[in-house]
Amino acid sequence: MTTYDYDLFVIGGGSGGVRSARVAASLGKRVGIAEEYRYGGTCVIRGCVPKKLFVYASQYPEHFEDAAGYGWTVGPSTFDWKKLIAAKDKEIDRLEGLYRKGLENAKAEIFDSRAELVDAHTIKLSKSGQTVTAERIVIAVGGTPNPHVSLPGYELTISSNDAFHLDELPKSILIAGGGYIAVEFANIFHGLGVETTLIYRGKEILSRFDRDMREGLHEAMVAKGIRILLEDVIQEVSKDGAGGFVARTKQGHSLNVGLVMLALGRDPNTQGLGLENAGVTVNERGAIVVDDYSRTNVPSIFALGDVTDRVQLTPVAIHEAMCFIETEFRNNPTKPDHHLIATAVFSQPEIGTVGMSEEEAAAKFEEIEVYRAQFRPMKATLSGRTEKTIMKLIVNAADRKVVGAHILGHDAGEMAQLLGITLKAGCTKDDFDATMAVHPTASEELVTMYTPSYRVKNGERV
Amino acid sequence: MTTYDYDLFVIGGGSGGVRSARVAASLGKRVGIAEEYRYGGTCVIRGCVPKKLFVYASQYPEHFEDAAGYGWTVGPSTFDWKKLIAAKDKEIDRLEGLYRKGLENAKAEIFDSRAELVDAHTIKLSKSGQTVTAERIVIAVGGTPNPHVSLPGYELTISSNDAFHLDELPKSILIAGGGYIAVEFANIFHGLGVETTLIYRGKEILSRFDRDMREGLHEAMVAKGIRILLEDVIQEVSKDGAGGFVARTKQGHSLNVGLVMLALGRDPNTQGLGLENAGVTVNERGAIVVDDYSRTNVPSIFALGDVTDRVQLTPVAIHEAMCFIETEFRNNPTKPDHHLIATAVFSQPEIGTVGMSEEEAAAKFEEIEVYRAQFRPMKATLSGRTEKTIMKLIVNAADRKVVGAHILGHDAGEMAQLLGITLKAGCTKDDFDATMAVHPTASEELVTMYTPSYRVKNGERV
Repeated sequence: MTTYDYDLFVIGGGSGGVRSARVAASLGKRVGIAEEYRYGGTCVIRGCVPKKLFVYASQYPEHFEDAAGYGWTVGPSTFDWKKLIAAKDKEIDRLEGLYRKGLENAKAEIFDSRAELVDAHTIKLSKSGQTVTAERIVIAVGGTPNPHVSLPGYELTISSNDAFHLDELPKSILIAGGGYIAVEFANIFHGLGVETTLIYRGKEILSRFDRDMREGLHEAMVAKGIRILLEDVIQEVSKDGAGGFVARTKQGHSLNVGLVMLALGRDPNTQGLGLENAGVTVNERGAIVVDDYSRTNVPSIFALGDVTDRVQLTPVAIHEAMCFIETEFRNNPTKPDHHLIATAVFSQPEIGTVGMSEEEAAAKFEEIEVYRAQFRPMKATLSGRTEKTIMKLIVNAADRKVVGAHILGHDAGEMAQLLGITLKAGCTKDDFDATMAVHPTASEELVTMYTPSYRVKNGERV
Repeated sequence: MTTYDYDLFVIGGGSGGVRSARVAASLGKRVGIAEEYRYGGTCVIRGCVPKKLFVYASQYPEHFEDAAGYGWTVGPSTFDWKKLIAAKDKEIDRLEGLYRKGLENAKAEIFDSRAELVDAHTIKLSKSGQTVTAERIVIAVGGTPNPHVSLPGYELTISSNDAFHLDELPKSILIAGGGYIAVEFANIFHGLGVETTLIYRGKEILSRFDRDMREGLHEAMVAKGIRILLEDVIQEVSKDGAGGFVARTKQGHSLNVGLVMLALGRDPNTQGLGLENAGVTVNERGAIVVDDYSRTNVPSIFALGDVTDRVQLTPVAIHEAMCFIETEFRNNPTKPDHHLIATAVFSQPEIGTVGMSEEEAAAKFEEIEVYRAQFRPMKATLSGRTEKTIMKLIVNAADRKVVGAHILGHDAGEMAQLLGITLKAGCTKDDFDATMAVHPTASEELVTMYTPSYRVKNGERV
């Protein structure tokens, strides 16, 4: 029997990688983990966490404005971008430290180095040139913003990675993309005082979301002062000679902006990883192909998280890691469950959603009931802010099961988390109806919509 | 067969009264409704709604302070109490108008008058002296703050009713009581800059809540600067000769304050209602005694909401009204369901809760599992604010059902509403475990606590 240096070697120190390394090590396995950049991965270093801190920062101007309706007079305010970046970086350092500490405490061996596959059991650490062997290898190297190299002038643009480290805020920004990253950053930059334009090739932002969410958010963003260009794409970016840029679009716009940001999807980080040395199969997008247990076509090699292009979310990568541990180290074969994942878009207002959109449910079920409420949040009655909350429940008429829940408004992400439990447990609309309201809350609308707003039968609204 | 002037006459224009009158009228019944003060009742006029608007107002100083950690410099702020009161009153007027409009549209006849019972089918309208008859009578006159007349100097104190209409904010206030009204107002006044002291006879505030919630909120309030005196009561209130008051307490404190507020429970509004004329039975607290269908001992007379001293909450009164309508006007006997009512305390931080406290569950079940998380909310990492969120799930070990959920922290009320669905539907801890996290949220803690923090077996922590 071959002896390996490690029971498990993990390439990539993000959510999925750190979790699998830490837990395997805590079970007494000999574990090594290599990360070329910073431990914590996209989520902690340049994703979910700093993004949400930016969201908080960008909400203050509305707090200052809203206070007037409640009797407050607030002096003039100023914003210091560098101060925010420094505070954010300090917090990210702290979190990275916690990730490292967790690995150290579990006695995993930490390598600050890029790592590449040599064969099915061998990894080369680029920094030292050292080669190590492992019985099992986990690839959890994540993804990276698509640089869109086919766009003339793409090298003049920034990605979300760069947005976390700008030296200064631009006066204006053009953001390309209609996904959640584009939308979240459009709201962040706008909230911080940057004149913001969003450009997206589709008919409406956030293509796979429920239509009410998409249209409701679009309206709210425009009402705030964000410009949204639909069915248009940037064709060329060039310098304007005054420190800014000119973006020419397919529809003939010529936009002068301080900065252009591309948020046009993310690519798996598989280039130069030596996958071909080990014979690991990737798909046409470069993502590693895995089976139901996160195993690649090479039996000793597994892949977790964004690099597999299943569902690109932190909790999913962590879940996949825990299932891998159960399967491989606890003798309890466990498939990751990707069904009914609640998600949030930290736009302003937020979107929280779980299950099927009205459109999906209408296509799948013979008859659905749609419960829809639209109202002004209580806080806005005195602040005078023009905003609306939209809540929707989609119910399969045949068995009364709630198959979709969608919220646009404050705390939508928190609500989606808990609605996720009800959908996962198969709760029916009757369970919602039997629940007493908590007053005054926004979410009480979700348990007091007793009559369908409308029904959709065989795809037709009736 | 006797002919009555009305099919239904409702005394009291609050949540339960207006709902039963409006819906009965919309079903084609001849309905009259009388209210001596303002339509909307305690909730709209001097309870839930203006209270929550005050909560919003009182939170702004923390927003202004927290902004600094996010890179903002905010100029000095000032607060104008009169402006808040005017804005609040305008909104309450609007809501009262909506209540009246709803009744008018349904063709209920509205009387702006006190009404008293003459007999089992007859009501006298005090203003006009007019007498009307009705086949059914609903009493939904609500409750009123206990004035505590046995306290020397009680006439110098204010109640929550008065708190909504103070001419000016005092410099300092002493609030007596440990229930949710006392606690909410203590936080409101403190947030608006009033030096606040809470005095309560019990060992800890909020007596029937889970201990972690009670202690956690107590700590948070003290950390903000609210003084809390426990196991003490006011024995006398007198004027201090300088526009303020002196409160002497049982423990020997002598407190000089600008205002004393009593929040020592609420009494049913049954005095002088003519209940004895109709032979309606009340209990020792003066509350109307009703059966499972909200019917009094007099078959033609029903009572709903706070006057019955069941559960004093707006949604409960509305639910009781809807059950009354089903039972009496839709031929569908329906008992109000008072089991598993989620509630919120709009303290700062909020409490949201549903089901049993740890103490209750430990007493009822042979073995319980307690899942407990305590953490600093993400927003506080940059604001530097010292605060913690506490989340608890109580699980009956025998069947894995979640029997209690308790949250102290931001948006706890919104979360309790949705957790209420899961408890009402009988969800198990496994349903929670099977739910994917939404990251980064606070509520994701509720689905990622996989291992019990501790167990309680036969009442003993193990």
